[in-house]
This record gives sequence, C-alpha cells and structure tokens, in this order.
Amino acid sequence: MSRHVVTVRCTDRPGLVAAVATAVAGAGGNIVDADQHTDEGVFCQRLVVDIPAADALTTAVRQAATSFDDVSVGVWPEQRRGRLAVAASSTGHCLWDLAGRCATGDLDAEIAVVVANTDAQRATAEQLGLPFVLVPQPANDSPDSREAHDEAVAAALESQGDIDVVVLARYMRILGAAFIDRFGTERIINIHHSFLPAFVGSNPYERAHQRGVKLIGATAHYVTAELDAGPIIAQQTVSVSHRAGPDDLRRQGRDLEALTLAAAVRAHLEHRVVVVGNRTVVF
Amino acid sequence: MSRHVVTVRCTDRPGLVAAVATAVAGAGGNIVDADQHTDEGVFCQRLVVDIPAADALTTAVRQAATSFDDVSVGVWPEQRRGRLAVAASSTGHCLWDLAGRCATGDLDAEIAVVVANTDAQRATAEQLGLPFVLVPQPANDSPDSREAHDEAVAAALESQGDIDVVVLARYMRILGAAFIDRFGTERIINIHHSFLPAFVGSNPYERAHQRGVKLIGATAHYVTAELDAGPIIAQQTVSVSHRAGPDDLRRQGRDLEALTLAAAVRAHLEHRVVVVGNRTVVF
Amino acid sequence: MSRHVVTVRCTDRPGLVAAVATAVAGAGGNIVDADQHTDEGVFCQRLVVDIPAADALTTAVRQAATSFDDVSVGVWPEQRRGRLAVAASSTGHCLWDLAGRCATGDLDAEIAVVVANTDAQRATAEQLGLPFVLVPQPANDSPDSREAHDEAVAAALESQGDIDVVVLARYMRILGAAFIDRFGTERIINIHHSFLPAFVGSNPYERAHQRGVKLIGATAHYVTAELDAGPIIAQQTVSVSHRAGPDDLRRQGRDLEALTLAAAVRAHLEHRVVVVGNRTVVF
Amino acid sequence: MSRHVVTVRCTDRPGLVAAVATAVAGAGGNIVDADQHTDEGVFCQRLVVDIPAADALTTAVRQAATSFDDVSVGVWPEQRRGRLAVAASSTGHCLWDLAGRCATGDLDAEIAVVVANTDAQRATAEQLGLPFVLVPQPANDSPDSREAHDEAVAAALESQGDIDVVVLARYMRILGAAFIDRFGTERIINIHHSFLPAFVGSNPYERAHQRGVKLIGATAHYVTAELDAGPIIAQQTVSVSHRAGPDDLRRQGRDLEALTLAAAVRAHLEHRVVVVGNRTVVF
Repeated sequence: MSRHVVTVRCTDRPGLVAAVATAVAGAGGNIVDADQHTDEGVFCQRLVVDIPAADALTTAVRQAATSFDDVSVGVWPEQRRGRLAVAASSTGHCLWDLAGRCATGDLDAEIAVVVANTDAQRATAEQLGLPFVLVPQPANDSPDSREAHDEAVAAALESQGDIDVVVLARYMRILGAAFIDRFGTERIINIHHSFLPAFVGSNPYERAHQRGVKLIGATAHYVTAELDAGPIIAQQTVSVSHRAGPDDLRRQGRDLEALTLAAAVRAHLEHRVVVVGNRTVVF
Repeated sequence: MSRHVVTVRCTDRPGLVAAVATAVAGAGGNIVDADQHTDEGVFCQRLVVDIPAADALTTAVRQAATSFDDVSVGVWPEQRRGRLAVAASSTGHCLWDLAGRCATGDLDAEIAVVVANTDAQRATAEQLGLPFVLVPQPANDSPDSREAHDEAVAAALESQGDIDVVVLARYMRILGAAFIDRFGTERIINIHHSFLPAFVGSNPYERAHQRGVKLIGATAHYVTAELDAGPIIAQQTVSVSHRAGPDDLRRQGRDLEALTLAAAVRAHLEHRVVVVGNRTVVF
Repeated sequence: MSRHVVTVRCTDRPGLVAAVATAVAGAGGNIVDADQHTDEGVFCQRLVVDIPAADALTTAVRQAATSFDDVSVGVWPEQRRGRLAVAASSTGHCLWDLAGRCATGDLDAEIAVVVANTDAQRATAEQLGLPFVLVPQPANDSPDSREAHDEAVAAALESQGDIDVVVLARYMRILGAAFIDRFGTERIINIHHSFLPAFVGSNPYERAHQRGVKLIGATAHYVTAELDAGPIIAQQTVSVSHRAGPDDLRRQGRDLEALTLAAAVRAHLEHRVVVVGNRTVVF
Repeated sequence: MSRHVVTVRCTDRPGLVAAVATAVAGAGGNIVDADQHTDEGVFCQRLVVDIPAADALTTAVRQAATSFDDVSVGVWPEQRRGRLAVAASSTGHCLWDLAGRCATGDLDAEIAVVVANTDAQRATAEQLGLPFVLVPQPANDSPDSREAHDEAVAAALESQGDIDVVVLARYMRILGAAFIDRFGTERIINIHHSFLPAFVGSNPYERAHQRGVKLIGATAHYVTAELDAGPIIAQQTVSVSHRAGPDDLRRQGRDLEALTLAAAVRAHLEHRVVVVGNRTVVF
C-alpha cells in the first residue's frame, strides 16, 4: 500500500464527487482524506488515497476526468522530498527558518540553492552548507539590464536541476514578467511584510507605524506580474502596542514573516493550494 | 431545489465515499460541500446537498447505508430554526450573548426557555422577553433532593415543547446522570471557564491566577456524567498579563466564554459535530 | 481612601516622572499603577492613585504641571458610570453587544440614547428599554441638507444631557466636519469593518473576498474629518478560509466588530487613550 | 549618554515611585521607559534610563534603596551580549531556532555551549559551529548516579565561562535540586510542550489527543525542584482540528515551543522578568 495525493480542478457540474470516488474505488484505492470546494463555478478537490498500485490510480482518475470540462488532474506520492530555491537579500531570518525546517525534517524538503542580489547572506549559506549564487544588481537600471539580470537568476536556479518552488525570502528586487512566465505563477512564492492589500510596496513597517496600526501582518502569495497582487496563500497578524517603533515592528515582524512563509511553502509542497482566478483554495 | 445536510457515521471500510456520493447523485442531488474524517476506525461524513426532492435524498442515503456497519445517518433541511433551552445561575453574559445572536439572526435559533437555580437572571429574561422558570436549589442536599431537582428542571424544559439543545450558560449546579440520560449526552452543552483539562471544577480563575498562567481559556463540551470530562466541541484562550488579578481574569474570561459557547451551539445546530469516543469531529 | 486616575500629556523633558510622583506623594497619594510613554517628543502618563482627599490630588498635580510645556492634565474618580450615545443603522449586533455589557456590568456605563438614520433598530432599542431617536436621511443630498441632518443628530444627542462618547455602531452615514468639531475628535468612536488602512470606505467584506485575503479585521478609531483615517484605538483580525463568501465574512466579522468596538469604548471610558498626532497611546 | 536598565523589587509602601524617580533625576538620568507592578505586597519596577555616567546611576539607586525593605536592585547596560547554555536531547527545532536568532541578531546573545544526554544533536551543533558536550545518561539509575550526572552537566556548563541562562530546549531529563540550587531557580528556563498546568510530565501531545482538546500549547517557565511547576514566563496556544493525530500535534507544537521559549529567553535577557512567589511579572 502506498499513499498518494490526487488533485482535480475542473468546471463544476453535478456528479463529480461520485465520479472521482467511484474511479478511486474501482482502482482498489481507499480514500483516507478528502476535501473539495467550488469557487465561482470551478470545482477543486484534493484526496489522499491508499492504494496498492499507483499506476492504476493515475489511469483511473485520468479516465474519469476525460468527461470533465477544463480539467487538470494531478497524482503524486505523498512522501517526496521537495526541492526549494531560495532568493535572499539583506536579511537572513526567513532563510534560517527554512533551512532549520529542512534540516530537522519539519519540512520534507531541501534547499537546492540560495540565489542573492547582495553578498549579505553568503556567510549564512556557507555555514548552513547551502550552494550560494550571487547575481549582483545591474550597475545601470534599464529594461535590458533587468532582463539580463532575471535571465542570470533563472540560469542560476536551473543549473541546480529540478526546482519545485522558488521562494522569495525577503528578496528585495522585483522579478520581471519573463521570469515569472518561465517558472510559472504558481511556482514562485513571495513573503510580503504587511497584511495585504495594506502597505503594498516598500517600507511597510514605517508606513504601519506612521498610520498607528495596532497590528502588523505578513502575507505569503504567489508572484504575478503585478507587485504584491498575486493570489494569497497564507496571512497572519500580531498585535503591537504604541511602544513599538518601526524597528520594533521589524523585529516582531520577523517571526510572522518566517511562520507565514513556511506555512505557504508547506501547503504548496503538500499540493494543498489550488488557484482559482486571483484567489487560492488551501485544503 | 432545497438544501439539506447529510451526516453519516459508521465503521470505516473502502468505498464509503463512493457509495454515498453515488446515492446522492442517483437521487438527483448535487454535493455542494463535503467533509469526512476517519477517527479510530469510525468514518464520519457531512455533506451539503442541493436537491429537488428531499424525500428521494433520505431514501437514497438510507438505502446506501444498509450495507454499512454500525451506521447512523441524518438528513436535515439546512435552514431550520433551532430551539434552545438555556440554564443560568448568577451571571448573565452568556445568556445576553445568546439572546442577542438569536435576536439579530446571527444564530438561526430562539431561546424557548430560561431555567435557573437562582432569581439573579429573572429580570434579564423578562427584559429580553424570554420565559423564565426558577427551580430553586433544594433546601437539603441528598440523592433524593438532587433527583427531584433535576426532575423539576427536566419538566420545565419539556413543558416548552421540542428542544434541540440544552445550553448550560454558566449554570453552577451539576446535573445528575438521570438527567443526562434523559436528554442525551450529545444534546447538553456546557461552558467551562478554563482550558480543560486544566482547572476542572470550581473557581478556575482563582486557581489560574494562583498558578500564574499567562493565558486563560474557555471550553464548550457535551455534558457527560463525569464533571468537565465530556467531549470538547470548542476551546479558546486569550493572553493575560501579570496585572490581571482574579477579578480581571473573570472579566476577560466573559468574552471568551460567550464566544466559545456560541461557536459550539452554532456547530451543534448546523449538524457539524460528530462524537467519536470522547472526542468530537467538528466539520 | 478613594481611587483616582491621573493623566498627563506634555512636551517631554527630563524629570517629569519624578515631578509628578513627588506631587502625588506630597498630596498623600499612593501610586498603585503607573504607565508612561513618549512618542515624538510628547510625554504621556496615566497613573492610578489611592488618596484620602481627591481635591488635594488635583491641586498638587495641577501645581506640578504649571512648569510643563503644552500640558494637559486630567484627574477622574476611577468609578464613574459613563454615558454613551450610540448611532445605529441597519444592523444591530454592536448595539446588542454594548447594551449587554452595560446591563451585565461588564462596562460601567449606560446607553443614554440610540440615534439612527433608519427605523431598523427601533424594535431592538425598545426591547432593550433604550430611548430611540430617528433622524431620517434627508430626501435630497446637498451641503445644506447634510448640515441640517447633522445638526438634528447633534440636537438629539444633546437633549439627553452629558454624553461621554458618541459610538458609531455600524452607523452607515458620514458625519460632517461641523459635527465632529462640536463633539471633539476624541469623543466620537467608529467601528470600521476592515483592518485599516486596507479597504477604506464601503463594502469592505466584498472587497476582502475579491482580493482573496486569508484574514478579515475590524478597526475602532476616533472619527476625524477624513473618512476612516482617524487615530486607531483597537484593531483585531481573524483567519478566514476559502470557504467563506462575502456573507460568511460578514457573519464572522460581526463578533470582531463588536469586540473591537467594546475594547475601544472601555479604553476610552477608563481614560487609557491618549492621542498623539494621528496615533494613539493606549495604556 | 548610555542606556541602562534598572530593576527594583522590595516590599511595597507609599512613595517608592517618587523615591526612585528622584534618585534617577538627581543622578542626571532621564527615564525613557518605566513600568511597575505590585503583587501581594511586593513592589516591582523596571526603568530604562539614559544617563551620562552609569556609576552615578548605580550609586543613586542603591542609595535610595537603603530605605526600602527586603529590596533587591539591579542596574545593567541595555546592550550586552547574553551567553546561553542550551541543553538538548533528541529533537533539534528549539536549538535551531535559538541559534538562528543569535546568528541573525534577533537575540543579542550567543550560544556558549550545547550540552546533551544523547548524540542526536551533535551533527546540528557542529554544523552550526557550537561547542557540543555529551553527558550520557548513567547506565544505572540511582540517587548517586543522578547526582554524578547533574554534576557532570554543571561542570560542562561552567567550563564555558559565565552563562546568563541555562535553556532546556526540549531536554528530556530531570535535573535535580542540587543542580537547580547551583545555578539558581531564576536562571534555568524550560520549555514544556503543553499549556501548563494541563499535561504535566511526559507525553503531553498523546494525552492532549486522547482528551480531544481543540488547542495545544507550550509553556516556558523557570525550573524549580517540582516538575513543571515553576514560575511561568510565557505561554502560547494554537488551535488544532480533529484531523490532527499525535504526530500532527507534535509538528504543530514545534513552532509554538520555539516561539514561546524564545520569548521567555528574550524577556530574561532584557531583565523584564521578576519572580514574585510562584508567579512572574513580565514587564
């Protein structure tokens, strides 16, 4: 018996749950966990199935899916070590956090490469035994130099073999549309240090302090071409008091950022996230 | 089209999800929400189904269930005004909270009767237009007087017609096993003012203060014959500081108690709670 | 011995804490609780003092304050029943919540009047025994009609004698600058149903759903002439799942709104809130 | 100008705040933050003071304190790199978390030594560049062997020079009274993986699952001779669902444990924790 995850996304119509369940049962599988949701006419489902033969499961589910509209189906072994690429800039707390989770087995994953636009985290990466690639900021800012830079980042990532997800761990540089297209919008996760849609863009902690908010937040989202506007995967807040200046908010925010990012990476690796329009279903 | 809730609890075996889904589809129903869980070999499921004819749904599900072991099945209209009996003692915050939720439509329910062992909440009940029945403490404490008291409480409740759930809203008197048997352990909800299993019994806030805890809690649970030991439905905590003495804890605890109790009552009325052993599945 | 609250706000300079503490001690008072904060050069302090003669305390503190710059000082008995005016529109959950807190003694306050721009909450007010004044929306919208409307609201409030704070309990109409000047920006509290500064203005739950946020919030703030931009007193969020449509967010938001508003009203009545620029210190 | 922290603990009487504030002002200091609390007749205070000459501050505060009863006073520079000893057993998540906080500057501290009763975390310590000392479990369990073991642990710690605090980071062995006396009860912090006082002792996650709780917790406390009964410094909980078995609770608990422990260590290093009886004041 092995355990697999099955995901289905298609246009909703009556009978889908029965059709999939019947296919799984017909292949000799036992559904040990099931979750589904319909959002704006799109049916999403995630099953965990125990089955003697994975091939039979894949065949049966794909067979059933031929009668669904606009369907995409996935079948994955539940246990499979994920490979992360982490992009970092000046701060290292999210990198440390992810590395610790991989090292202790909290995340069933490894960091295949750290790519950075500054040298600030090189020592950290070396201490943690992680390959570190510096792709420095272009000296002059132009569409061409930006494209060349993104190209170099992409090459650095791809040189490490298959990557499941690119994690922007407080990476303070915007990646262009070409880069995003290359990796796919549902394969790049960013952590933004505010509760979006408040404080899009730079310096959210200073702006939060200036506005006098009583809580700060962090948002992990898939990256799209529009800044800080992609589908949100995870979001958390924590209360702050009037005593906290911008530096205190930054410090309190570090834990939030690391936790929220890790939650999103975990959900992604476990095939729990389905994007519908600009929203996510997180099973 | 009407919307119904279907619940199934039975011994787990492969093919149950498919069997139920096929039955629903066969009756012309569309599953709009589904959740399931297996706990220690017991399969639990809650479906929300849109269907033209409720009778066909009931028939189809019961039919499918004949092949399941140790099965219990329920089919209910999703919209159905619940009827609560509230038992109160000296404090009124949970009563006020429930009454407000019923009055504003937050809970699709009404309070059929308030039964109390003191007169403290009579004025509140009258202001809120709720029938109030005083069943005073027996003068002498003996098994007989306790049984007679419980009998009088039961009679007061039953005089109001069908009751979906008895809510012990900080009711400071223990109801005996005979009372519990009469109403059913899964039909009486108590709110205890601590995060159980810490501080079982009386004066939890004093004891919490004495222990120097940094958070206090509230626990809503089904009542069983053993004090504060029944299946937990909902539980919440809130941080407290060293500044809070027992009276402050009591004040901070009021919001927790009211919210936690309301969450449990809502889950119960929406048929989201399934008891397995001494644990609950809350869909 | 009676217990008083002392608040001080002035330009910061060395020796302020000593000067106030010496004055209190000189008047025979014992400081049982003290909190202070300096924000952008403004010193804020709140003391709780046990003292045999309140007059001596007031005299001593005012005397000490004569040497402070830009100073404002307050001395209040700690126990003093507050008087609220509540403005309501179509929904009643915040009104119910505040009324319950006043009735059960959770807030040491009473609702002196409910003023509304629709008749929706008249029955609630009557059931709760609260004076209800309808000031209907003007038939035509013009600067003059708006001013006349605000004037009528102000008159309705003032007819009830002294009011400590005007509470906009989901009051869905904007009050003009003249009204705000009349009551003072630090005497009108609004509850906005989002985590400001996200979703300023109308329909925040719809917009939150559309953006796919994973938490919703509520913000209680002092009202200023700019919409939803006044100093924030209290702010809370709660996690939401992909299952929640706008109506579900609205329901989940009700508890948040009521709790956040009540927290702000309590802090205001206990003289815990000091406004510095557009931020609040909440002791 | 340098910034110092002043702490005072003594028997309460009128005039203490004024006496300390006057002493600080007399020494030329400016109080930039002040907090105080009286618990069961014990007055506790923490000040942050800007001052040209630290010696003058110490002298002035000690001078003032001569007239206080049962007084203990501390004056520390605010910036001072703390030195931690970490005791570990089979799991490494708290060690990783603390090491990351030290490495990224989140905690102004360093881990001077890792001492362990198993070899499980040796590789982690070596990767992180931390001295690792194995003090294996005694082969036979007797009062003598336990004392010898504790003696060896103490020697390992002391060989590393001054230690500010011993952090039991999921160290699964009980240290005896002699060890605790040697280091002082307010210098050893343990993280227990439950919301104490629930689930004292071993296997709290299994017991939490068995009881069917809807939240799990973690508690950081000073170690005393009685197991899991020392003064609580920090405590957090997180909601869990019926889906979580003991292993899931263990995983969800890791974040809680690391965060709660780090909060307690930070508070300790910043001289925010004052023990009164078996409770803590955490400024």
